[in-house]
Amino acid sequence: MTPSGSEAGTAEHAHHGYMSDKDAYLRRLKRIEGQARGISRMVEEESYCIDILTQVSALTSALRAVAVELVDDHLMHCVLDAAKSSDDSVVEAKVKEASDVVARLLRS
Amino acid sequence: MTPSGSEAGTAEHAHHGYMSDKDAYLRRLKRIEGQARGISRMVEEESYCIDILTQVSALTSALRAVAVELVDDHLMHCVLDAAKSSDDSVVEAKVKEASDVVARLLRS
Amino acid sequence: MTPSGSEAGTAEHAHHGYMSDKDAYLRRLKRIEGQARGISRMVEEESYCIDILTQVSALTSALRAVAVELVDDHLMHCVLDAAKSSDDSVVEAKVKEASDVVARLLRS
Amino acid sequence: MTPSGSEAGTAEHAHHGYMSDKDAYLRRLKRIEGQARGISRMVEEESYCIDILTQVSALTSALRAVAVELVDDHLMHCVLDAAKSSDDSVVEAKVKEASDVVARLLRS
Repeated sequence: MTPSGSEAGTAEHAHHGYMSDKDAYLRRLKRIEGQARGISRMVEEESYCIDILTQVSALTSALRAVAVELVDDHLMHCVLDAAKSSDDSVVEAKVKEASDVVARLLRS
Repeated sequence: MTPSGSEAGTAEHAHHGYMSDKDAYLRRLKRIEGQARGISRMVEEESYCIDILTQVSALTSALRAVAVELVDDHLMHCVLDAAKSSDDSVVEAKVKEASDVVARLLRS
Repeated sequence: MTPSGSEAGTAEHAHHGYMSDKDAYLRRLKRIEGQARGISRMVEEESYCIDILTQVSALTSALRAVAVELVDDHLMHCVLDAAKSSDDSVVEAKVKEASDVVARLLRS
Repeated sequence: MTPSGSEAGTAEHAHHGYMSDKDAYLRRLKRIEGQARGISRMVEEESYCIDILTQVSALTSALRAVAVELVDDHLMHCVLDAAKSSDDSVVEAKVKEASDVVARLLRS
């Protein structure tokens, strides 16, 4: 599954499309964690439902945006790397897997 | 429906529809926080994109389900209480506010 | 649009919040019909999947926008009129019904 | 891109993934057209907003389901065929295009 050969040990990760942006993803996900904690706290403090729902919308949008970017990175790196260098059955498995995850996202 | 006791009569947050289920909401939101933390950790540990996206779907669905329930509680408690006992301009403001938050949720 | 009183025959409709904008809704829905027909035709003519999916997105967004507006009109007219003039059990039934339809929309 | 006739071998639309199921797609899209027409008619006849919104939800779900299937067919046929037989720049363009349409769908 390694596209370029000489990798060993941590080779697996070389395929993970988001890695180049790992820090950017981590920052966004830390913010998302913070938003989730904030919503818990609002309920704890008995904030007004409308304000809580506004934060739930914002968190849903933030998650959606991360999903859009992760799908793009996955397709443009993991799937594309496989397409360039793997045999057909590997590519087919990767594409099916991507299609299934997109279906889950569209239904969520 | 007052959570903390000493409030009088029309205490502001006596209207917060979710209060009866506050503990249930808190449990769900703690789980949601845990899901958000789990996704950060997966990126930190460079998990496979597809597995991360599957967790993003699950978290989005969990948030959607909380939103559905909060909207129901808000309408069935805050808005309905206002409809029963407040003057028209208060009811109108509450209904407009609910409509706006539903619009935000539908677009998120 | 009067909720109470002397209505007969077509009285039912008087409560329907979208009626003031009926023509605007009809124009939007005719466009939506046209978009749906266009998608069928694209499949008939074997257009490129990506172009079809782009049209499916556009149609979904158009429907979402109509739903947002219909919910607003319904809450601000039907529900509000009931809140102002009907007895509690009627208002409660209307609010429950609105909450249920919002839940269906959020899950669709 | 013409659906019939004289194309040879790798005819452009041999790649259109949905073609094997063209009739099934057409039947579903005809139903979707019928649903859209039905919603127009409900507004024309001034049906109850809640009933209209229920139909809008049903139509949105039906569109979502078609989108999920079209994405799968596109990835599993058009993209996969390109991955197997085209040069890298073609595959890359196809994958980017698929990613972009998924982003549009997730935001719709």
